[in-house]
Amino acid sequence: MENINKHIEQTLLKQDAKKEDFINLFEEAKKYQFLGICVNPLYVKLAKEYLKDSGIKIITTVGFPLGANRSDVKAYETKLAIEDGADEIDMVINVTALKNKDYDFVKKDIETVKAACKDKPLKVILETDLLDKEEIKKACEICIDAKEDFVKTSTGFVKGGVGAKAEDVELMYKTVSPYGLKVKASGGIRDKETAIKMLEAGAERLGTSSGVKIIESN
Amino acid sequence: MENINKHIEQTLLKQDAKKEDFINLFEEAKKYQFLGICVNPLYVKLAKEYLKDSGIKIITTVGFPLGANRSDVKAYETKLAIEDGADEIDMVINVTALKNKDYDFVKKDIETVKAACKDKPLKVILETDLLDKEEIKKACEICIDAKEDFVKTSTGFVKGGVGAKAEDVELMYKTVSPYGLKVKASGGIRDKETAIKMLEAGAERLGTSSGVKIIESN
Repeated sequence: MENINKHIEQTLLKQDAKKEDFINLFEEAKKYQFLGICVNPLYVKLAKEYLKDSGIKIITTVGFPLGANRSDVKAYETKLAIEDGADEIDMVINVTALKNKDYDFVKKDIETVKAACKDKPLKVILETDLLDKEEIKKACEICIDAKEDFVKTSTGFVKGGVGAKAEDVELMYKTVSPYGLKVKASGGIRDKETAIKMLEAGAERLGTSSGVKIIESN
Repeated sequence: MENINKHIEQTLLKQDAKKEDFINLFEEAKKYQFLGICVNPLYVKLAKEYLKDSGIKIITTVGFPLGANRSDVKAYETKLAIEDGADEIDMVINVTALKNKDYDFVKKDIETVKAACKDKPLKVILETDLLDKEEIKKACEICIDAKEDFVKTSTGFVKGGVGAKAEDVELMYKTVSPYGLKVKASGGIRDKETAIKMLEAGAERLGTSSGVKIIESN
């Protein structure tokens, strides 16, 4: 498979990452020409400084990783992240509301963040590790209804979670692709074999901290 | 040891908790007369509804669990949580800034949230699983300097982390108690033996989802 780098968002969300780790990430992104990088919102400004005019997209996370914030807090975080230079926003849904079948809340939460995104793409993280197939499908349908850009599997922060599973990516792809939405697979993608499996299952984007290893391996 | 319940913040921060789990938490808090409950910010309103006039404190989390948000987002989340009925705020420091020895940022981040707290107590979560003893001590000194109310060990969300350790609680207690700050131990406190060990090490508060088990066991 060619140009895997153009599907990769090289990701650094570790709570104890140092400034040098971020700078290393930005340099890797330039060297390997990854599609983008993904960092927590506080580091968007730093990313913008290093990646200005590089064409590499700056992606950040909102309400991350629990999604258990008020919608207006998620929206405010989104607004400031875009002002700081974010090109795309990855938000976490409210899993509690989905579990309670409070679909109106789930949709309104997403729409509130989408409004703050203006013209920037929004990816909606479902946290598939915590959902059954029915819930994954329902969450996808809500995203279709809310006219989102991407559905995304995982935060990578669920204890004991595995992250992206090919069967979930496939279910998400089949559900959303007829409506023009794309899929981002994330969490646990640590080698080329897994990366290819995710792309074959329908993922357009891969969120991974192993982008260099994926590209370098044969 | 008597009245352990008056040290306990019965805690539910699970991303996939259902509404009934929260209601159960509030009822347990009333039954066992816990000092307080601790939930993510979206559920403060629900807590207020169930715990109004009960005397049980409503505690919530801000910038949780990564702390990698802009300070103004943490402050906005704090402001809204207090409007919703929160009695106390538990914020997460920026571990990256601490690791980089950018102590001015760490302090300013805390002070920004403190200003939004107004008269409500603020607990500062250090995330001790990710810190060495030197860093724990330094973070405590910053909290003394910023005139905080509590230092708190852990979010409970670090993968592979153990949460509160008696030796860390003791170090924190020795560092902050001469200045009037208190210590909250949290993460991994699942039985009475551990609870008592934490109190003996100097903790004033215990954040745990096992409060009922701790009280019921002999």
